Amino acid sequence: MADPRFFANSGLFTLRRLAEITGAELRAGDDPERAFADVAPLDSAGPDQVSFLDNRKYVAAFRATKAGACIVDPDLADQAPEGVSLLLTTDPYRAYAQIAQAFYPAVAARAGIDPAAVVSPEATLGEGCGVEAGAVIGAGAEIGDGCQVGAGSVVGPGVVIGTGSRITANVTLSHCLIGARAIIHPGVRIGQDGFGFAMGAAGHLKVPQLGRVVIEDDVEIGANTCIDRGAGPDTFVGAGSKIDNLVQIGHNVRIGRGCVIISQVGISGSTEVGDFVAMGGKVGVAGHLKIGPGARLAARSGVIRDIPAGATVAGFPAVPVKEHWRQVATLAKLSKRKED
Amino acid sequence: MADPRFFANSGLFTLRRLAEITGAELRAGDDPERAFADVAPLDSAGPDQVSFLDNRKYVAAFRATKAGACIVDPDLADQAPEGVSLLLTTDPYRAYAQIAQAFYPAVAARAGIDPAAVVSPEATLGEGCGVEAGAVIGAGAEIGDGCQVGAGSVVGPGVVIGTGSRITANVTLSHCLIGARAIIHPGVRIGQDGFGFAMGAAGHLKVPQLGRVVIEDDVEIGANTCIDRGAGPDTFVGAGSKIDNLVQIGHNVRIGRGCVIISQVGISGSTEVGDFVAMGGKVGVAGHLKIGPGARLAARSGVIRDIPAGATVAGFPAVPVKEHWRQVATLAKLSKRKED
Amino acid sequence: MADPRFFANSGLFTLRRLAEITGAELRAGDDPERAFADVAPLDSAGPDQVSFLDNRKYVAAFRATKAGACIVDPDLADQAPEGVSLLLTTDPYRAYAQIAQAFYPAVAARAGIDPAAVVSPEATLGEGCGVEAGAVIGAGAEIGDGCQVGAGSVVGPGVVIGTGSRITANVTLSHCLIGARAIIHPGVRIGQDGFGFAMGAAGHLKVPQLGRVVIEDDVEIGANTCIDRGAGPDTFVGAGSKIDNLVQIGHNVRIGRGCVIISQVGISGSTEVGDFVAMGGKVGVAGHLKIGPGARLAARSGVIRDIPAGATVAGFPAVPVKEHWRQVATLAKLSKRKED
Repeated sequence: MADPRFFANSGLFTLRRLAEITGAELRAGDDPERAFADVAPLDSAGPDQVSFLDNRKYVAAFRATKAGACIVDPDLADQAPEGVSLLLTTDPYRAYAQIAQAFYPAVAARAGIDPAAVVSPEATLGEGCGVEAGAVIGAGAEIGDGCQVGAGSVVGPGVVIGTGSRITANVTLSHCLIGARAIIHPGVRIGQDGFGFAMGAAGHLKVPQLGRVVIEDDVEIGANTCIDRGAGPDTFVGAGSKIDNLVQIGHNVRIGRGCVIISQVGISGSTEVGDFVAMGGKVGVAGHLKIGPGARLAARSGVIRDIPAGATVAGFPAVPVKEHWRQVATLAKLSKRKED
Repeated sequence: MADPRFFANSGLFTLRRLAEITGAELRAGDDPERAFADVAPLDSAGPDQVSFLDNRKYVAAFRATKAGACIVDPDLADQAPEGVSLLLTTDPYRAYAQIAQAFYPAVAARAGIDPAAVVSPEATLGEGCGVEAGAVIGAGAEIGDGCQVGAGSVVGPGVVIGTGSRITANVTLSHCLIGARAIIHPGVRIGQDGFGFAMGAAGHLKVPQLGRVVIEDDVEIGANTCIDRGAGPDTFVGAGSKIDNLVQIGHNVRIGRGCVIISQVGISGSTEVGDFVAMGGKVGVAGHLKIGPGARLAARSGVIRDIPAGATVAGFPAVPVKEHWRQVATLAKLSKRKED
Repeated sequence: MADPRFFANSGLFTLRRLAEITGAELRAGDDPERAFADVAPLDSAGPDQVSFLDNRKYVAAFRATKAGACIVDPDLADQAPEGVSLLLTTDPYRAYAQIAQAFYPAVAARAGIDPAAVVSPEATLGEGCGVEAGAVIGAGAEIGDGCQVGAGSVVGPGVVIGTGSRITANVTLSHCLIGARAIIHPGVRIGQDGFGFAMGAAGHLKVPQLGRVVIEDDVEIGANTCIDRGAGPDTFVGAGSKIDNLVQIGHNVRIGRGCVIISQVGISGSTEVGDFVAMGGKVGVAGHLKIGPGARLAARSGVIRDIPAGATVAGFPAVPVKEHWRQVATLAKLSKRKED
């Protein structure tokens, strides 16, 4: 069970309710009024807990589980042990997410402005916002209904935040417009100057960065990630994209909708990333490139040319993933030969 | 036009004034009293806006521009469309930077200490400093005239900051001396302990880090970058160097003047970097090395040996850049052959 | 000498006392009552200062040193110049660390809660804790005796911190239990949501992250490092492990005891790292792997398979280190041939 110091459990839920929440089918004959108290992994769940099987690698654990209910693909229903109720769906992980959200809903902002917060009288806050101690909100900022601004976070002058967004602690926002239902993790920096200089032996002259950062709805941004504002155009992150920790996004970058960008990725200035692109950890993308929609960049890829839609690439310089593995195999083989 | 929520435009400026600001020549016959209201890119600029052509790739856009004035190399003057006034210079990007700075000057610190800041009575602040809400300044800190200390930033005891420096929000400074006109972006950490331990199976024993970080004038440091203090000698950053976001600089590192260090670079302890070195994104440099003045390390280079002055290297382990590309081509060719 | 603005020197110490502190032997004939005022490097130390020789590369500096005392391996005692007292030990660097700690002891927290800190009445603080201005401590937090919570740091509800831990400035802690004598550097983020989504074209659905971060005793964590909490299991860092700056540790990762993890490493979700593993800068480790105890991952290694105990690996994909260097040599040779 989740540590009650940190998590509040909203159960019980009946099997019927869990089916409603997820759209999963109940297995014929299972009791829809059976009640459940929590979620748990297959190997530790008990009879009042709900588990799930998503990866067929864990079928053995499914066969042996003591869980009271399990979310599972209909194809595997016949392998369930006795006594377990089944929620049948072809996307068990998604259904698990929905059920876990039901048991442990995101904590709403505690409405009200802490006396130790500093909110400009020229800022606008919607209904039900919570502003924690040490937060600072500048003149002209507009914050939508039900937002949270965490302890020690700084919302600069003129920043706009959509409804229901959660700005956690120690975040810095400036020169940006953020959509609804954003989750901005601790230490995120959004809207600072892009890295633009007219280089020269007499000194590098700063080029004013006159754009903004525009972030659409339902974006999540991981801890200590940095998104610089545009030099003239805006830096942009499309709806529903999820960005992990310690990512760098340079000025003028455009990221499409539904992208997934893993930790320590760096995307250089003015690159355009299409919708539903996935980037593994530590990927680097040079500036002024186009990454086509649906492309997949394997972890550690170093991308220095445009990538077509739907391609999967790996390595440095990044090449189609099969070619990458062939290169790896070739080099390993040639190196071994030397010893003969 | 730049979003007025975030940027204040100081125009108009006459062509004559723009020529004075930049040292560019007016094209004979252009009206020096023509006035301009803003800067804009070639393809969107209108008749009261100033644009520039720096990269010959955009000559077509130049030929078609509706901008009222354009900064351009004299060699290209004859390709200007009718109606555009010309500012002639061999370094158009630098002139653009100067003009953009004129229209959008860096915002001066708003003088005064916010009542929600905490400034030690034993700290010294120069004239015209601005200290924002939630900033904390320790005993013995000395802050020069016209500095800004942003919301939530912490200036530790004894820290010295030169005149006109801008410490933005949520920065942490300790054990450091910072020069004049520095720009320190949000989340920067300067002066914490270097990573020094006497390793051993019985436990890793902490080695006190007894040096400082010394940063000369006109340095800019990007968001969430970390610069550890020296173990005994100081960690050092030379005048005019520009460091991007999420960079790691280890203890005792010495960085020369005018260096440009792109995002996610890591420089290990005690390495010396000469003047005007450029490092691309994600470069890693091992410890105790010497990188000669003017060397260029391509993005993702992994440097494990000294690099001579003026050399350009790439790859891991980093080799001269031509050799790197030959290696890439060789491996690609050998891997293809396998399929025949 | 260390800058007195930042460091307070606790000397003098006699040679006898230094021998007691370190367990080193005095060379026969040296005066145990000779007193010393400071530590310094071999090449700058004077007659009232203590230096050390750890790396045989510096034997020449040892032979020429003007230091009053030197910590050295007994094998090298006969190369000491006249006038230098000797502290003999087979681990001079460890003895230096102990002596430097004696001259410059870690500064204890200044007990008391700054009036500009915000501490929940439902939090529990031990004896002698120091809470600096702008720190925010949530309900139910339990902080042990003698801890420091630095300026601008946020300790979330329910967080537990062991005795004598030093949370520096601008740190964010949530959903975590931290052991005794921890040192948490500025900008560290511990306990935020792991990166877990049920991906899908209709949108990526957030999977609640219901675990914690558990950190054992004597752990040091570098500036701006991020450790996400577990998805259900906990994320875990074993006793005595030392983690450098800008490291990413994903959800459910387990790090053993005594590990050393250098800057910009990234460890993906659910990977298990054994005791006394060392990882060089910028190493990346994929998710769900096992890194055996005592393994050494060279800087920039990209690890995509389990690593056996005690192995040393390098490169991407990481291979045994000798194989890596053979691959590097092979490719260099083949590329050169092309020019013939």
